[in-house]
Parts: sequence; C-alpha cells; structure tokens
Amino acid sequence: MELVKTVREIRTSLAPLRRRGARIGFVPTMGYLHEGHASLIRAARRENDVVVVSDFVNPTQFGPNEDFARYPRDLDRDRTVAAAAGADFLFAPSVEEMYPDGAGQFFVDVGPLAGHLCGRSRPGHFRGVATVVTKLFNIVQPHVAYFGQKDYQQALILRRMVRDLFFPLRITVYPTVREPDGLALSSRNTYLSPTERQEAVVLYQSLQEAGRSLAAGERDATRLRHRMEEVVGRADSSRVDYIEIVDPLTLLPLERVEKPALFALAVFIGKTRLIDNALFDPSGKELSADELFNRTWSEWE
Amino acid sequence: MELVKTVREIRTSLAPLRRRGARIGFVPTMGYLHEGHASLIRAARRENDVVVVSDFVNPTQFGPNEDFARYPRDLDRDRTVAAAAGADFLFAPSVEEMYPDGAGQFFVDVGPLAGHLCGRSRPGHFRGVATVVTKLFNIVQPHVAYFGQKDYQQALILRRMVRDLFFPLRITVYPTVREPDGLALSSRNTYLSPTERQEAVVLYQSLQEAGRSLAAGERDATRLRHRMEEVVGRADSSRVDYIEIVDPLTLLPLERVEKPALFALAVFIGKTRLIDNALFDPSGKELSADELFNRTWSEWE
Repeated sequence: MELVKTVREIRTSLAPLRRRGARIGFVPTMGYLHEGHASLIRAARRENDVVVVSDFVNPTQFGPNEDFARYPRDLDRDRTVAAAAGADFLFAPSVEEMYPDGAGQFFVDVGPLAGHLCGRSRPGHFRGVATVVTKLFNIVQPHVAYFGQKDYQQALILRRMVRDLFFPLRITVYPTVREPDGLALSSRNTYLSPTERQEAVVLYQSLQEAGRSLAAGERDATRLRHRMEEVVGRADSSRVDYIEIVDPLTLLPLERVEKPALFALAVFIGKTRLIDNALFDPSGKELSADELFNRTWSEWE
Repeated sequence: MELVKTVREIRTSLAPLRRRGARIGFVPTMGYLHEGHASLIRAARRENDVVVVSDFVNPTQFGPNEDFARYPRDLDRDRTVAAAAGADFLFAPSVEEMYPDGAGQFFVDVGPLAGHLCGRSRPGHFRGVATVVTKLFNIVQPHVAYFGQKDYQQALILRRMVRDLFFPLRITVYPTVREPDGLALSSRNTYLSPTERQEAVVLYQSLQEAGRSLAAGERDATRLRHRMEEVVGRADSSRVDYIEIVDPLTLLPLERVEKPALFALAVFIGKTRLIDNALFDPSGKELSADELFNRTWSEWE
C-alpha cells in the first residue's frame, strides 16, 4: 500500500490505472480507522481493481466549539489498518493541500436535508461534508464510493448530491459495525471513560427497544420516542441532543410509523456526542439503507 | 453531428470514446449561437478529438425579474451553427432533465467573487452558473472547457471553482468576438431596436477611450471611469448599471492603475442589459484573460 500526501501524486498514480480500465473504489474517512472503516475497505477490495482510502480530518465540517483540534489522529495505525483491509492507496493530504486558498471560497450548499437531525445541532456541518467530498470525488474520480450507515444523514445527503449534481459514480452504504454489546463503532468512542463506555450502549439499546415496541404493535411516534428516551435516561452520564423518528428520504418527522422509518438519535455521554440510527419497517424489522436508496433511485445516478 | 437530449444518452455516447483515450473538448452555451460561440467551438475542434456543445438556458442563473422566459431560443439554427463549427454532439437537455428533483436542493456557492460587478446587480446569478456548470462538467467529463472573455467574471469564477473544488479539467478563455463596429457579440443583442443597436457601440467605445487615456498617462481610476461614463452617456438610450476598474483576480476596486486592471461595465441600452470588459496594463495595452489566469495559476488545476 502506498501513502500519498498530495493531490498531484494521487492523480499521477491513478491516471495510468484508470486508462487501463481499472475500476476504482473509494473509502473517504477522517482516519483513526476502526473495524467499521475496515469493513468498507474490504467491501471496496472485493468489488474493485483499485482501492483508495482517504484520511483527512476536514476542518470545514466542524463547528467553532467542536472537537476539530482534539479529534483523534494516528496515521501509523491507519496505515496498518488500511493495508490489512486491502487498500492500495492511503491518501492523507494536509489541510493546506485540500484548501489551498483557505476555506471560504466555494462551498457545496446542501438544501433542506441539512436542516434536520445532526444538521440542526451542527450548522454548517453537512455543507463542509458535501464540499470536501466533492473535492475528494474530483481528485480520486472513483467508480464507487463507500459510506457507513452509522452516519445515515450524511449517506442520504451524499446520495442525493451525486444524483442532483450528476457525479459520475455510485455511492454504496454499508451497515453499521458494532461492538459486541451493540455500541456503534466510532472514532469518538475513544473519548469515553470506562464508565461512559459502558453507559454508551444505551443508544443501541434504545433502538432495540423501538424495534421491540414496533413488533408489539406500537405505531405512535411520540410514544415510541418516549420509550427510547426512557432507555437512554438509564445512563447517568447521558444527555439527549435529539431522538427522532422521521421519513428516511425527507427526514421530516413522522407522527405514526406506517411505512419504513428512520429512528435516529444523538446523545451526549459525558462530554462526548455520539449518534446511532436504525431503519425499521412498521413491523419492527430492520431494513438496509442501501437497499432503500437503491429502490428509491433505481436509475443510474 | 448528433443532437442529444438526455443525460443518459450523452454519457452513453461519450463513454466508449473516453475509454479509447479520446480528448473531449466542451463548450457550454445557453444556445442562440453566434460567432463568439462558433469561435469557441472551432478552438475546441482544433484541440480535441471530440467536441461537445451544450445548449441549455439555465433557469437558476436568472433572477425573478430577468429575461429567462423570453431569452432567445432557436435549436434548429443552433444545430446548423454548431455542426458548421465542428461540434460532434449538441447536448440540449430540458429543464426537467437538468433539475430532476426541482431546483433548490444542492447549489455550488461562490464566495466573495460573486459579490462584485454583475454579482451585485444579479444576486444568485453566479451561484446558478456554478451549479449548472458543475452538473455539466460531471455529465460531460471534458478534458478542457471553453469560455468567452466577454463574461469575464464568469470565466474567473469558474477558473477558481475548478481550482478550489479540484475538477479534473482545464478552463480556457478565448477573446471576445466583436461586430465590425466593436459591439461584443451577445445573444441578447437580438433584443435591440435598430437605433439601440447603433447606440450599443458605446460600451466598446468607452473601453477604447479608457485604453487611450491610459496610453496618455492617466492612472487615476475615478478620472478614467468618468471618461468612460462620458462616452456611454453619448447614447440617449443608455443607463449605466456599473462601470468599474478592478483588480482582475479579486475584483476589488482600484484607485490607481499601476498593474493590469479589469475595466468592466454593464449598461442598459433601452431595456436590454449589455456587458463588456477589457484587461489593460497601465500603458493601455490590452491583455488576454487566459494568459493572466495561466500566469497566476501555473500548476495543473
């Protein structure tokens, strides 16, 4: 595996491969790779000739009071994880390389989808995501890009962006990878104290509770949300940012679950903000985001 | 030459050519092609294996009180002009094809450069331009795209966009093509009555006057602007929108012309808003925008 730090180098490396018809799979990450990332890289490896992983903590998707400066970074470990999972290139540019004229010139503005869920708590976040992903897509020019369902709203927005702006690639969304107790893998889990780490499982447990309530016949979104709040409240260190049950394509709140719905939550465990989600049909069966997206936008995007 | 109306068709047509290594030149237009467009198409023909011309009146770059509805359209004539100039494909999509989910989802936001000159008179205009050009670039995936210097601010913004967002292509800017009396070619010239058409030459004459004043040693921007206003004022039907002398890269107003400067103006002739510009060095010699851009951003963009 090759570590590449400049736009020029990654382009120069990929150009001859592309000319020879190689199919390029791309996994954009902010580094500090965990098994969730590794599962995306392995999927890219299975489905493509060349696998590129990017490793870039993007400043424009962090708010002024967020954790950009202390976001965990470990390039040596990332090299090992990416190589073991089958990456051919690890693209780890500097901030200056990605924003050569400073931030604040061109931005990809996300429409109404950025106004819900995490976008409400983190204004500007999805604009930063859409912008850096546009840059990365233009640099790598992949055939397929891989994202995890843990960041559901991000995956939805990027699927829509690819469709709306006609990026010549596909986005594939893979299921959330979890710890044995159910906690969704996240680079931010490293912020948790041992007690917080134990308590953090309430996010997953609240989603399970929602699934069980649906299976038992509950359809009322307010009551379902209250059940989830109850579960989250069991952790002393928890403080709810949001718990919502929304239409999985518009992200608008639902009053009743009569069709597939996204159950999404963001919870502070101590000072660490964690997110999780699940797509359920009204019977409480969990659905895959990728399948839902593919069914909704069936055409070549 | 092939007339193509859908995204799917143009992609399907270009994919095998691209695989065989063909170099693709692209000329985005709003149709109603004139000799200015034809000169861009001929340049694309000389420099590429495949030439694509797009023909799309983009609604999102028109303000609510602007001329979107009555902007001149003549696809039959465009076919003739594009074919004669050497185009291989004329891509003329519908509004629904380019904005399948309606306008108002994803937009490419232009930074400070959109706040000057035409951007001040036409809020949202360059956002619409940057968005539709992003879509077209993603659809056509050209190696080179051609724009005319008549729309200087557009050319500058798109050069910056390609650089900032890392679009894998080059933008080339060709000189403004003029009528024998100096009037810059524009599809909007068709709105002019015979008298207005005669008077419209004052835009060009004011630029010539600025060049002569520079050559005579004038460096003061206020006095230079007044000379231009005087010339424009000779036309009874004229009303100045703006006359500005600005830094050609930042578009910020200059007080004195001590280095290359952009002289730009927008003038209503009757009800028709026309624009023109020239790049002068302090001695009054006219410079090429393309050379200036290439000198400023010398790296592969």
